[in-house]
Amino acid sequence: MSDFTPPISDIRFLIHDVIGLDTVSNLPPYGETSADLVDAILEEAGKFAASVLAPLNRVGDQEGAKLLEDGTVRTPTGWNEAYAQFCEGGWQGISAPESEGGMGLPILLGAAVAEMWQAANMAFALCPMLTSGAIEALTAHGSDQQRELYLSRMISGEWTGTMNLTEPQAGSDLSKVRSTAVLQEDGSYKISGQKIFITYGDHEMTENIVHLVLARTPNAPAGVKGISLFIVPKYLVSDNGEIGARNDVTCVSLEHKLGIHASPTAVLQFGDKGGATGYLVGEEGKGLAYMFTMMNNARLAVGQQGVAISERAYQQALKYANTRKQGRDAKTGEEVPIAVHGDVQRMLMRIRSSTDAARALSLYAAAQLDLAHHLPDNQDRAAAQARADLLIPLVKGWATDIGVDNASLGVQVHGGMGFIEETGAAQHLRDARIAPIYEGTNGIQALDFIGRKVLRDQAAALMAMLADIKETIHGLKDIDETSDLAKARRELDHAIVDLENSTDCVLERCAADADMAQVLATPYLRQAALCISGWLMLRSLGAVNNTETPEDLRKAKTKSCMFFFTQLLPEAAFMATQIRNCTETELL
Amino acid sequence: MSDFTPPISDIRFLIHDVIGLDTVSNLPPYGETSADLVDAILEEAGKFAASVLAPLNRVGDQEGAKLLEDGTVRTPTGWNEAYAQFCEGGWQGISAPESEGGMGLPILLGAAVAEMWQAANMAFALCPMLTSGAIEALTAHGSDQQRELYLSRMISGEWTGTMNLTEPQAGSDLSKVRSTAVLQEDGSYKISGQKIFITYGDHEMTENIVHLVLARTPNAPAGVKGISLFIVPKYLVSDNGEIGARNDVTCVSLEHKLGIHASPTAVLQFGDKGGATGYLVGEEGKGLAYMFTMMNNARLAVGQQGVAISERAYQQALKYANTRKQGRDAKTGEEVPIAVHGDVQRMLMRIRSSTDAARALSLYAAAQLDLAHHLPDNQDRAAAQARADLLIPLVKGWATDIGVDNASLGVQVHGGMGFIEETGAAQHLRDARIAPIYEGTNGIQALDFIGRKVLRDQAAALMAMLADIKETIHGLKDIDETSDLAKARRELDHAIVDLENSTDCVLERCAADADMAQVLATPYLRQAALCISGWLMLRSLGAVNNTETPEDLRKAKTKSCMFFFTQLLPEAAFMATQIRNCTETELL
Repeated sequence: MSDFTPPISDIRFLIHDVIGLDTVSNLPPYGETSADLVDAILEEAGKFAASVLAPLNRVGDQEGAKLLEDGTVRTPTGWNEAYAQFCEGGWQGISAPESEGGMGLPILLGAAVAEMWQAANMAFALCPMLTSGAIEALTAHGSDQQRELYLSRMISGEWTGTMNLTEPQAGSDLSKVRSTAVLQEDGSYKISGQKIFITYGDHEMTENIVHLVLARTPNAPAGVKGISLFIVPKYLVSDNGEIGARNDVTCVSLEHKLGIHASPTAVLQFGDKGGATGYLVGEEGKGLAYMFTMMNNARLAVGQQGVAISERAYQQALKYANTRKQGRDAKTGEEVPIAVHGDVQRMLMRIRSSTDAARALSLYAAAQLDLAHHLPDNQDRAAAQARADLLIPLVKGWATDIGVDNASLGVQVHGGMGFIEETGAAQHLRDARIAPIYEGTNGIQALDFIGRKVLRDQAAALMAMLADIKETIHGLKDIDETSDLAKARRELDHAIVDLENSTDCVLERCAADADMAQVLATPYLRQAALCISGWLMLRSLGAVNNTETPEDLRKAKTKSCMFFFTQLLPEAAFMATQIRNCTETELL
Repeated sequence: MSDFTPPISDIRFLIHDVIGLDTVSNLPPYGETSADLVDAILEEAGKFAASVLAPLNRVGDQEGAKLLEDGTVRTPTGWNEAYAQFCEGGWQGISAPESEGGMGLPILLGAAVAEMWQAANMAFALCPMLTSGAIEALTAHGSDQQRELYLSRMISGEWTGTMNLTEPQAGSDLSKVRSTAVLQEDGSYKISGQKIFITYGDHEMTENIVHLVLARTPNAPAGVKGISLFIVPKYLVSDNGEIGARNDVTCVSLEHKLGIHASPTAVLQFGDKGGATGYLVGEEGKGLAYMFTMMNNARLAVGQQGVAISERAYQQALKYANTRKQGRDAKTGEEVPIAVHGDVQRMLMRIRSSTDAARALSLYAAAQLDLAHHLPDNQDRAAAQARADLLIPLVKGWATDIGVDNASLGVQVHGGMGFIEETGAAQHLRDARIAPIYEGTNGIQALDFIGRKVLRDQAAALMAMLADIKETIHGLKDIDETSDLAKARRELDHAIVDLENSTDCVLERCAADADMAQVLATPYLRQAALCISGWLMLRSLGAVNNTETPEDLRKAKTKSCMFFFTQLLPEAAFMATQIRNCTETELL
């Protein structure tokens, strides 16, 4: 029913022929990442996703995670075994440094693999996703001892990690965090407070859980500068790494959610029995800044959930549309599968084409993170970092929005059967709906994009991006003006001019009235995401004709790209109109 | 938590000041429908919706309808009592003829009231919605005896009605119906077969249920012309109206659905014990044609579910946004509710403005049905019928699509809380998702619009509609060119030109290639819906300034209309581009 075929040929095409593996494989730490290795990793990961994770997706939804009377959290049937296999494969450490026990592979490859976990079983894949965030935070900011005690066990998957930011009164506005941390004589802290929406906040799949917790020290300044980051393990760990007593942190309830039922979303109570023991990470007062250093990866990962659920929804809808017969061929009178009806094809192509575009954008952004970490030249690294910073709110905001739309279209393709839970299409919609919300709502993404990524540098990083795009556009020479490629180029060319105009408009209006950023943010993000992913679709269209692409992939990609340029990219002009028409904030 | 305030002032404004009550109240059968009566009915209905139906919405979702071991179907706590009150109020018969025991009020008013039931409790309101469809079918096509035996009891609500069309292999394509009906010596028929997706197919709220069933007589021609319509009561009814033995129809299961949990969606098995007794309605072979006569009302009603759920989602999101504090005022440093943030306002206004536009379109379409039934002149009636036929797929297709989008936006406004089922926002999304599917999928609506409503008469009805719109546009004289009204008029003027161009394009391409209709249908429906509802928004904007509208309503309507013209109507140009760019069917 809900078979999942890993989209390996699409991912390979993007890595090898569009983004170019050599852009990252030549970076110092990735010297041994050959094309063959990449292909082998994708194959193995795909096999695991399809054969182990995907078959558990529905049972996870039905059973959900449960808080038992003894206070433990039970994950659904098969979760423990799947998690053990995940660790055996070493998958948690795919992009972690080899020096810490990871595989040391490019973030690009880690992202490609993660998309498959998310497509196969989003509720399961959230667990390693959160652990990855904790790994990154400790890799960057943990002390040697903290890294030794916690990091290698998280990279191996032996222990999982969580992120404890949100409190009932502090969601998008983390300045309102109230949890407290009081320094003890031994250098540890006593942590008290309640954290909500903690993904995999408790479970029994591993013998320990490493909670990363934002809290305030006494006398710390109000606002975000008073917030520090602490390690609070579920079980205390002795200096030689042995697991000791239960720490004072309790899962007091699990949320009853629309989707991702198998992922335990916990309310965690710290310090009801005198204070949970925590250990300061880095310096006091820098907790939020540390969180920001890992936010790019986390937001990229959530954006990929939008791509992943779109892919899964597409596969399921296509299969149904090819099987379900309604209506007849006008000429032959034969019964036909609904997939041949133009309107059903339009729905399928909307999912297919937007998924391809968002996948290209997400993998390109992942490659920028590799470049930002490892390019030899300082300035080049900074430029790559600026580009990653620019793109990631687009990936998170746009890809998760289309994830919801695509899962909804997937339901629609099924007709009445789509509304029946047993079909499985509705689960994708329920699961997809969280992605525009968590890890910074899409409204927050849009504000991050317009404010920190465009207004702050007066669109310098964006202009550098657009210069590359224009180079591609004008670099296509000697092409037949009636060809698909020429048509696509013309559409993108117009869209980029529009985006430049919107950018001028944004800069001008926000300079005159700071509140305009809030008003323009969402359509501006969407316009930019469409245009920049359009660039990658143009490059895809160029690549299928230039490389030795198999014929079926060439046809599919060409159709997907041309659908994008004729049917999806024109939405960018609609967004430009919305922006142009927003002449006053009172409009809203 | 999920309080519902009936949108009476908005509905009154549309009926009295935009559509004009006198356009229908002057029709022969409605002579006594005074403005005061309309207001009194709206007040009473609003009270019932808010105080009886709305409080049951969540319990209905949680408990759902249940098929018990004894084969009976149990509706949720409170359903029986609410249904009894509904009947006491005489609400089932609001638009049924007085001669049959109804209130004999305009369809316009019946639609306005029905929207409030749907907003308060969509799963409950489905029951009277289906009964209305059965009432209409029997009013038009039932014999005198059938009307006497069944109709008055359905109009009073004493018995409910169902529509049995779909079978596992026959959904959008009803030509594939296989259920059989064999004539008996007494003139009745023995009905056998399985029907699926039967809304309120079984329940214990009433002592009988009147199933209307499509089935094939032996030797009937293949395809749709071999299908007849039958009355199959749950309990047999004697000639003097007494309830007798149980008929051979069994609810074999209830579907486990994404939403509308409280509405029992039944699989009904007819004739497992030798055949269910059924009575032919009208003539053999005309079953599908009879269904079409009631389809306008049913599709209008489903379209209104999109409006209703949007209204409900808006009210809940607005309340949360006005209460939840995150962020601070840049000048005063005070904590602010999220409703003041421009991006949250944009989400709220998207819901508000599209809801207003879709409500206007749905009520205007309802008024056309009144005119089509009761205008004195034959030609005028035909013209009104053509307009209703034109508009109803737009209401069904567009309003239910925005219903899903708006419910999803409502979730988004709540942030993390939106994903938690207890909040109630997620239920609206789950409930809303069925409306684009049933009563003809929105793909079917788009095909109906482009095929039967535009291509068949070479756009004559549409051109008559556009002529009226242009008369409004050009009829606005002596207005300040910098005013909101002038701006709105300019936007609509451009949009109508675009729609004419799209229509030319549709006529031309579909003449050259019949398959193009499938390819162009969906964007064409959406473009038309935006433009025609834009006309009603322009008239609304004119009306708030011309009538004695209360100041708060005037401000709210002006804002909603201007948001529509600057932010929503421009999507019509995007749809026009999609159409223009579809030069070949292979694109999809």
